[in-house]
Amino acid sequence: MSKPQPIRYEAASSEVREIFDDIKKVKGIPEVNNFWAYLASDPKTLKRTWESVKEVMAPGKLDSVTKEMIYLAVSVTNNCGYCIASHSAGAAKAGMTPEMFGELMAVIGMANETNRLVNGYRVPTDPGFDQ
Amino acid sequence: MSKPQPIRYEAASSEVREIFDDIKKVKGIPEVNNFWAYLASDPKTLKRTWESVKEVMAPGKLDSVTKEMIYLAVSVTNNCGYCIASHSAGAAKAGMTPEMFGELMAVIGMANETNRLVNGYRVPTDPGFDQ
Amino acid sequence: MSKPQPIRYEAASSEVREIFDDIKKVKGIPEVNNFWAYLASDPKTLKRTWESVKEVMAPGKLDSVTKEMIYLAVSVTNNCGYCIASHSAGAAKAGMTPEMFGELMAVIGMANETNRLVNGYRVPTDPGFDQ
Amino acid sequence: MSKPQPIRYEAASSEVREIFDDIKKVKGIPEVNNFWAYLASDPKTLKRTWESVKEVMAPGKLDSVTKEMIYLAVSVTNNCGYCIASHSAGAAKAGMTPEMFGELMAVIGMANETNRLVNGYRVPTDPGFDQ
Amino acid sequence: MSKPQPIRYEAASSEVREIFDDIKKVKGIPEVNNFWAYLASDPKTLKRTWESVKEVMAPGKLDSVTKEMIYLAVSVTNNCGYCIASHSAGAAKAGMTPEMFGELMAVIGMANETNRLVNGYRVPTDPGFDQ
Amino acid sequence: MSKPQPIRYEAASSEVREIFDDIKKVKGIPEVNNFWAYLASDPKTLKRTWESVKEVMAPGKLDSVTKEMIYLAVSVTNNCGYCIASHSAGAAKAGMTPEMFGELMAVIGMANETNRLVNGYRVPTDPGFDQ
Repeated sequence: MSKPQPIRYEAASSEVREIFDDIKKVKGIPEVNNFWAYLASDPKTLKRTWESVKEVMAPGKLDSVTKEMIYLAVSVTNNCGYCIASHSAGAAKAGMTPEMFGELMAVIGMANETNRLVNGYRVPTDPGFDQ
Repeated sequence: MSKPQPIRYEAASSEVREIFDDIKKVKGIPEVNNFWAYLASDPKTLKRTWESVKEVMAPGKLDSVTKEMIYLAVSVTNNCGYCIASHSAGAAKAGMTPEMFGELMAVIGMANETNRLVNGYRVPTDPGFDQ
Repeated sequence: MSKPQPIRYEAASSEVREIFDDIKKVKGIPEVNNFWAYLASDPKTLKRTWESVKEVMAPGKLDSVTKEMIYLAVSVTNNCGYCIASHSAGAAKAGMTPEMFGELMAVIGMANETNRLVNGYRVPTDPGFDQ
Repeated sequence: MSKPQPIRYEAASSEVREIFDDIKKVKGIPEVNNFWAYLASDPKTLKRTWESVKEVMAPGKLDSVTKEMIYLAVSVTNNCGYCIASHSAGAAKAGMTPEMFGELMAVIGMANETNRLVNGYRVPTDPGFDQ
Repeated sequence: MSKPQPIRYEAASSEVREIFDDIKKVKGIPEVNNFWAYLASDPKTLKRTWESVKEVMAPGKLDSVTKEMIYLAVSVTNNCGYCIASHSAGAAKAGMTPEMFGELMAVIGMANETNRLVNGYRVPTDPGFDQ
Repeated sequence: MSKPQPIRYEAASSEVREIFDDIKKVKGIPEVNNFWAYLASDPKTLKRTWESVKEVMAPGKLDSVTKEMIYLAVSVTNNCGYCIASHSAGAAKAGMTPEMFGELMAVIGMANETNRLVNGYRVPTDPGFDQ
């Protein structure tokens, strides 16, 4: 096999087109983004991933902007460039302002720092946190 | 040096006690948790970390429960056991219900999954996300 | 020191050339890849790394394509772009088809997701797994 | 909310029991493991995760032992203790011998090492790997 | 919000300029690097981060080149491209030779390898290490 | 296969005993630590890992305490509990004082924080760092 390639709408099977159509409808966008176009080379993974993302990211007890910011916190911690770009856009679309972005980044940075202080100092869990 | 040891209030210097007192006041707790007691062996790091955490975690454009959930998202991604326990407690205290916790975990899991699908499929960033 | 630079065959010492020759022979390639050319600036690390990789990646109880896919699973989890590109090529050369690649990515994604669900839910190890 | 708690079969809703029954049938085990019991506090996540795992881990172009070893490679890289224990057991059940385990660990270790050498030496991708 | 943008000296507020001036003076550079220019969109984070970095990276019991190499070890492990580039430059400026760089990379690689061997073999801590 | 088990000196093959003897001599310890006892179940990995560690950790342009602290920086970042305990002991034995430990932890924490700020703000590399 060569490098993974995207499958665009025109070249997609009817099974893939159906999923693309649902993505476009739910997200209100004219074309699916690269992520979905690349996953389309494995229709089972495309379908399972889209159905999972659709369920997980729908507003529930947490609203859309909170969910997008959490997604971004994970992506920044893992340094996934594509994911940082796409979920920064997603969070902004859902209402994240520059001030909220600044606070989000500050919390992510602080958590990554204190996580390591805890590791290095070998801090045992307080009994009260473990109940 | 031997294994890191906590410094408890009774054995602390006046400089450390002053920080401990501020932590207890701001957090409304009778004793500082193990994290702060361990950091106290390096008073400069204790002071800088507490001042930073106090500033970063104070409610601003994001409220306390959102900030605690973001902290938890990072800690779960990094698998810091102490941090997961302490910020689960912190988030719950700030208002996170079991239903919110469930949604939070679902988003964290999904983000960690799709981050790797992006890596493996080598998905290029859509031009629209990079503006 | 400036940015790390590759050492190409023409400019290499006889010690480095000998290792390059062995890499080319074992891998059946006309020129060593960038990874080896960059390591050549530290001949000890070049030699140790090549000898280790040669031993570890040789088919044994696990065949080459399985070993390449495991390498890829680690590289995707760590988001090492170079490693993803080189071991995708290596796995394909060893027999990985697009269908196998799709299944590999699906497992990697799922494992990264469930690893975090385990962390967040603080799941204790079942006694039966610990024997 | 307090610390996450498992939901055992006797205390489970009929919706959760149905999923538990399917897990037990597919895996051929008398009781679901802790992972599923903990996820059961969020039935939607339990259902989605089980359906995804069932689909992804079913033998396809890759057989069960290969999929379990890939899962283990990710879990070892991420240092998820529960996942290492459960998928070591899963891989052994699917046919992984101690010799295969040894080779698996050797590849995982080597990949984690060379991933960082690539990062530190800032090795650019060879054009041939990017096609 | 759109993609994060740097704030250059000419466009900066007096509060930001004051921090930029201090960075330039302490580091002995004519212009602040991109990192500081990007953080400047959130003056509180700029100020807190600079004050923390200035305190932490000042020579103390560990000299500057050792601190820069530790920073680099973390950045290589996390695969932060910008950080690898900037702290390679910083370490070189503080006295790291190509030979020291080679040894540093070798240790980082080895540690990342053995960390995973420990995880996979589930090695329990020797009592003597835990005192 | 069952859970990995250590192989102690009395039960070891002559090939493994020879490596154990060298470890004890080089490190000046009466018994090998658990890490080596567990690796002994795969003598090839034991041998290769010991020879690599012996070469990499020998004092060179970097002295032993610096190498141990770099090892610790990686292990803290990866949250490898065994490795943190063993290399804290190793660093202390090589001369790390509590003050040096405190500064080491402060740098590790700061690097993990700023790595993520760089990711989240998508900071492009300054041309001067890339030469």
